[in-house]
Amino acid sequence: MQKTKRKIINDPIYGFITINDPLLFFIIDHPWYQRLRRIYQMAFAQLVYPGAVHTRLHHSLGAYHLICLAINELKNKNVDITDEEELAAKCAILLHDIGHGPFSHALENVLIPNVHHEEIGLQIMHELNKQSGGKLDMAISIFTNQYEKQFLHQLISGQLDVDRMDYLTRDSFYSGVSEGVIGYDRILKMLTVNNGQLMVEEKGLYSVEKFLVARRLMYWQVYLHKAVLAAEKMIIKIIERAREIYTPSANDLKLNSTLDYFFESFTNMNEEALQKFCLLDDVDIMFAVKQWSNHPDIVLSTLCKNLLNRKLYKTKLQTEPFDEEEVLSVKKMLSKKFNVSLKDSSYFIFTGQAVNTTYQLKDERINILSKNGTYNDISEVADPLIHKTLSMPVKKFYICQLT
Amino acid sequence: MQKTKRKIINDPIYGFITINDPLLFFIIDHPWYQRLRRIYQMAFAQLVYPGAVHTRLHHSLGAYHLICLAINELKNKNVDITDEEELAAKCAILLHDIGHGPFSHALENVLIPNVHHEEIGLQIMHELNKQSGGKLDMAISIFTNQYEKQFLHQLISGQLDVDRMDYLTRDSFYSGVSEGVIGYDRILKMLTVNNGQLMVEEKGLYSVEKFLVARRLMYWQVYLHKAVLAAEKMIIKIIERAREIYTPSANDLKLNSTLDYFFESFTNMNEEALQKFCLLDDVDIMFAVKQWSNHPDIVLSTLCKNLLNRKLYKTKLQTEPFDEEEVLSVKKMLSKKFNVSLKDSSYFIFTGQAVNTTYQLKDERINILSKNGTYNDISEVADPLIHKTLSMPVKKFYICQLT
Amino acid sequence: MQKTKRKIINDPIYGFITINDPLLFFIIDHPWYQRLRRIYQMAFAQLVYPGAVHTRLHHSLGAYHLICLAINELKNKNVDITDEEELAAKCAILLHDIGHGPFSHALENVLIPNVHHEEIGLQIMHELNKQSGGKLDMAISIFTNQYEKQFLHQLISGQLDVDRMDYLTRDSFYSGVSEGVIGYDRILKMLTVNNGQLMVEEKGLYSVEKFLVARRLMYWQVYLHKAVLAAEKMIIKIIERAREIYTPSANDLKLNSTLDYFFESFTNMNEEALQKFCLLDDVDIMFAVKQWSNHPDIVLSTLCKNLLNRKLYKTKLQTEPFDEEEVLSVKKMLSKKFNVSLKDSSYFIFTGQAVNTTYQLKDERINILSKNGTYNDISEVADPLIHKTLSMPVKKFYICQLT
Amino acid sequence: MQKTKRKIINDPIYGFITINDPLLFFIIDHPWYQRLRRIYQMAFAQLVYPGAVHTRLHHSLGAYHLICLAINELKNKNVDITDEEELAAKCAILLHDIGHGPFSHALENVLIPNVHHEEIGLQIMHELNKQSGGKLDMAISIFTNQYEKQFLHQLISGQLDVDRMDYLTRDSFYSGVSEGVIGYDRILKMLTVNNGQLMVEEKGLYSVEKFLVARRLMYWQVYLHKAVLAAEKMIIKIIERAREIYTPSANDLKLNSTLDYFFESFTNMNEEALQKFCLLDDVDIMFAVKQWSNHPDIVLSTLCKNLLNRKLYKTKLQTEPFDEEEVLSVKKMLSKKFNVSLKDSSYFIFTGQAVNTTYQLKDERINILSKNGTYNDISEVADPLIHKTLSMPVKKFYICQLT
Repeated sequence: MQKTKRKIINDPIYGFITINDPLLFFIIDHPWYQRLRRIYQMAFAQLVYPGAVHTRLHHSLGAYHLICLAINELKNKNVDITDEEELAAKCAILLHDIGHGPFSHALENVLIPNVHHEEIGLQIMHELNKQSGGKLDMAISIFTNQYEKQFLHQLISGQLDVDRMDYLTRDSFYSGVSEGVIGYDRILKMLTVNNGQLMVEEKGLYSVEKFLVARRLMYWQVYLHKAVLAAEKMIIKIIERAREIYTPSANDLKLNSTLDYFFESFTNMNEEALQKFCLLDDVDIMFAVKQWSNHPDIVLSTLCKNLLNRKLYKTKLQTEPFDEEEVLSVKKMLSKKFNVSLKDSSYFIFTGQAVNTTYQLKDERINILSKNGTYNDISEVADPLIHKTLSMPVKKFYICQLT
Repeated sequence: MQKTKRKIINDPIYGFITINDPLLFFIIDHPWYQRLRRIYQMAFAQLVYPGAVHTRLHHSLGAYHLICLAINELKNKNVDITDEEELAAKCAILLHDIGHGPFSHALENVLIPNVHHEEIGLQIMHELNKQSGGKLDMAISIFTNQYEKQFLHQLISGQLDVDRMDYLTRDSFYSGVSEGVIGYDRILKMLTVNNGQLMVEEKGLYSVEKFLVARRLMYWQVYLHKAVLAAEKMIIKIIERAREIYTPSANDLKLNSTLDYFFESFTNMNEEALQKFCLLDDVDIMFAVKQWSNHPDIVLSTLCKNLLNRKLYKTKLQTEPFDEEEVLSVKKMLSKKFNVSLKDSSYFIFTGQAVNTTYQLKDERINILSKNGTYNDISEVADPLIHKTLSMPVKKFYICQLT
Repeated sequence: MQKTKRKIINDPIYGFITINDPLLFFIIDHPWYQRLRRIYQMAFAQLVYPGAVHTRLHHSLGAYHLICLAINELKNKNVDITDEEELAAKCAILLHDIGHGPFSHALENVLIPNVHHEEIGLQIMHELNKQSGGKLDMAISIFTNQYEKQFLHQLISGQLDVDRMDYLTRDSFYSGVSEGVIGYDRILKMLTVNNGQLMVEEKGLYSVEKFLVARRLMYWQVYLHKAVLAAEKMIIKIIERAREIYTPSANDLKLNSTLDYFFESFTNMNEEALQKFCLLDDVDIMFAVKQWSNHPDIVLSTLCKNLLNRKLYKTKLQTEPFDEEEVLSVKKMLSKKFNVSLKDSSYFIFTGQAVNTTYQLKDERINILSKNGTYNDISEVADPLIHKTLSMPVKKFYICQLT
Repeated sequence: MQKTKRKIINDPIYGFITINDPLLFFIIDHPWYQRLRRIYQMAFAQLVYPGAVHTRLHHSLGAYHLICLAINELKNKNVDITDEEELAAKCAILLHDIGHGPFSHALENVLIPNVHHEEIGLQIMHELNKQSGGKLDMAISIFTNQYEKQFLHQLISGQLDVDRMDYLTRDSFYSGVSEGVIGYDRILKMLTVNNGQLMVEEKGLYSVEKFLVARRLMYWQVYLHKAVLAAEKMIIKIIERAREIYTPSANDLKLNSTLDYFFESFTNMNEEALQKFCLLDDVDIMFAVKQWSNHPDIVLSTLCKNLLNRKLYKTKLQTEPFDEEEVLSVKKMLSKKFNVSLKDSSYFIFTGQAVNTTYQLKDERINILSKNGTYNDISEVADPLIHKTLSMPVKKFYICQLT
């Protein structure tokens, strides 16, 4: 009796996610999409929050589910959205993270220097578009904000998009940091379109505030948790060290796998590189870490062993910079202790800055639509919680040190 | 094999609540405590949030459960708390709302003018203390903040007490406003005692922020929701009208029940009045509303019928005062429509102010204890979300009008 | 931009319930429907499970929400359901419990002897139909199973209807007996229509088993919990006693309220009686209990005081009948202790039987539809959990005794 | 102020898990325990339930948390448990799955033929015991059921142990199959010790029934879900094929990693093998699958590519065996299609049997303790749900076929 193929997927958060169009199946069944199963959404956060092992694939399915709800809601409010636009928006959100490489943000710009995941993602979308015979044209147009109905792009990428709604909800659910939970269902119910822009009805104001505060909490408590930071710095240092000591002739770093290409031959993201990139996932990196934990280079093997066995850098966060002289004296000590050069010991102790901006006043806005039809940015309503203070970037200084 | 009587109570929020001391059973089994079963925790909020029908009894059991967790946590951190103090604190929290009358805050100062529920509560505690042979001495001392270990009082009554933690959690759970949910478990884990005062460990900072923001949200979205406000104003107006037209001779307002006493004979909260008070609950008020919905006084019967059938005042909230001339002209219209005097029509339309202060800087403090042993108020830490703006009282003007 | 009035209601279980048709608003806003706010869904279960204070109104809104989901699902599977049928089914489920009186099942056949709530409900529906100008014709036809598409009736009343799905889910949620939780969302996804009958797809088999076992658990653990049983017997005995000692002349039982009518004048459910009935709710009964707790009749006042203060009968459940001689000897003792006649002491001690049938083989069926298009009753599939044993009524004998 | 190191770990299910003894830290920090982070609890179930990506480490932390609750409960009931016994039981449960290899049950007896994970686990425990200076003696004694207080062993391994309670709860939570949820908290509250044996109080009967029915549901709906079965058969066939075509000289299967050892040199689980085993995890297998997806052997590379890209066997489950002639004819077709020998085509189509027994009458018992002190197996109480039918093994025949 059923007209078209229809599949429901169990989700611990939303219950059931429904897939019901051949183009959606084309994307989901594609090896490049399936690859996202093998990329942790939260990289090494699982070393602190053991439950946080969910994947990029799961997140993008979740964001897809939320856009289904959002579009349904907007249509109920008589916002004009054609079937074609609906499907295009769904494809765009399914693909919004397709350009992520192994360990996502943790290794972004490290493994593939100077290429942002959104650029790669766009390249992949164009390739998939070719394969599908041009069926993704509108999805790409929405993704790149060239489509006239801008609110569709804003649903996918904006201060209050379904991407953020899903990742905050999902990351907080899986990590067990229940305070990160946001009222995604109420926010979705409060979305509306005015003047061609995505807005929030007045009575959704407190839900949006809660959303921004939850985000702030998740940043400091989870994403920038000092042990999470430590683990992510460790994998970065491992890749940097491997690249530093890599020589084409000496092959004791080679794994005979796709990863080799990105040490040996990669120059820019040309077609060959893209094909290679689409074969990479967390498995390649973790396998490398396991292999290199026996490498003769003491710096590399030490870092690899430590990451594997969760001997993370001891890390401190503070509002003032650290005393560089003290850092130097520890560096000297570690250089002796591990018998490495002073320069190399900067793999074992280093400082830096972590930055978080909860709400960016300038770049993007969350418009609150009042009943009389006027609208204001959330920072300009009466009695704002979200205001100048919150919208200034907050820097913290960190120090990481092997123990 | 079991030493003492021990009872577990199912709670939808916390799972199981354990009662395990004769003194606790004495309190819970007392008719004055059982009376709290018949008092809604959230008065008429259920007219807007149909799930919000939980009771004062349930809330005080919940707060009791949280203090059990909190004390256990503090003891694990080697805070010195004797068995006697532990039991006393538990009794104090069980009894903290014993002085509430029908519909709690909604009718406070209306049914029994000029007597605060905490005063009545204290009188009741003294009476129960007598009945128990003085076993509640320490509980009362903690409740009134005369006990030397002040942190015990702070657990029961302070900016971050188990009372607030339970009511925010429970009200948000039962109303279905899931955004009011707070991380009570994490906050409890972060509690500590320093300098004899209850404090929060530094890493609990974001949880406390979340708690304060959840409270702000619950205030505007639930407690001061305009339809909730409307219903509570309506029951107040009903009691006020009944009192206004009450005459000792004309008995068409009499119910031949305890409630009569508070219209006829009450002067001050003497022993007789207290005994009468302890027989009152929501049933008495609701029965009166049902009876009076047929009363010849058009003002009284109209309000009663409307409340019963959920024809609430139409209400607006705004940041500016309402135009008194416009109000007057509506008043005249309603006076004609219902055929009542202009004076009486102020039962049908009126204005006022609702106030909310999320965090009161002066009165009470939430101390954040840093690792180096220093502590600061939450409004004084680096990068505060909670600061001057939030701690100013926020007024909104409302207008209620029959339709 | 919104075409029709549309309202969302917060529900702690389902998130949001949407009302979007004038006929639905007509029903919900009707005083007879609002009356259900003042009737506990689970009568006195709250004396054992303090959270179980939800109302008939909330339950029928919940069941309404589930039928919205079910119909949406069936339409996605190309089951032919017209807009008119959809609305009619929604009205029917909203009204399915409209005939319940105070304390629902607990006082059914006691307060109004020999009249079942479904009969009263039907009378009320006819009256509402008149008031709405015949707009409820089809709803009534579905409710009484006279409508040709029988599956619509089965959604409302059958072994696997949305009524049961909601009350199991809601009762378990509010009582905190989390084990009663059923997978209502999965069952709904597995519903289908075959041969004009509601069926469950094969892969929903285990969910249905779980549903039936959850029901069994809720019966013994909650609905027939011995203290719940005790409380419900107590209110029954109170009403029976009041009726027994009631005389038209002596008015010390009178409350001057609607309840009087059902002691004095009620003969059959004629129009006057129906109007009176629609004014009754839990408030009337609870007020009577409070008043009668001071009545000179020792039997009546004792029972009333005990119920108010939660001094319930001590109750035992067992598979064998109780020894009648032992019962008699206790009866004599209680007769002396309370100074009442031997006959009257049967208000203080009595025995009886509680019955539960998890699955009734004969009356109704749950058809499991296999992929090849054949279907079988759930008790006839391979490897059945649900079979003869489970479908036999299970009796337990109880004894209740005042202490 | 804190005496000993104490750490809390966020868990999405239980809230917080507390670790508070140096011996527990010794275990958890050990590389062999950290290895469990890299082993999926549910192998390839995530190909069907994308949320089911939790790890063996997380499960064993969860089971540890439940034993903490259970022991606390038993001590409250005056069961004699010394501090040493408590710690030993906690260590035993933390280590109960330490012997699992990559993909747990899916590859058990395949990667390391004829060695059960519990044997390996015991070897590892002995080795850890050595490293800790004998501090795990009692834990091992409990684990192997040689300790006199048998109920401690039963908590760890029995029909109603914390292992099952956690895995049912966790697997159902992470997969989103909410119907698998059990009332672990109530069961724990109902545990008691009688006659030296772990038993369940009578009033926990329905909770235990629910537990067994949830298990039955999880088996058929999740663990033996046909696509999950398909994925697990696929990884088994991959390993079998690799082993079949492996020759010491031809090294195109070699990965230069630990895995090679188990193809080349493994004979029995001697000390060297154990050390190697403790380096293996899911990463090694997934890396092999990725590498071999380019292997010249068409059987191996096809299976590897298919598993990576989620092109699983098409699978059927039925109660009757499949027609062997039909199977043969498909085999021939596949042999042609893939250009492999008829023998090799049995990697592409094959049949077998899946077995599930919900409750094993003979081996183990769940004793229900009645109030009068007698006890019976759950299958022998009055009105049993769990009886002969449920306790017979249920076989289903399956067929898997490449498409």
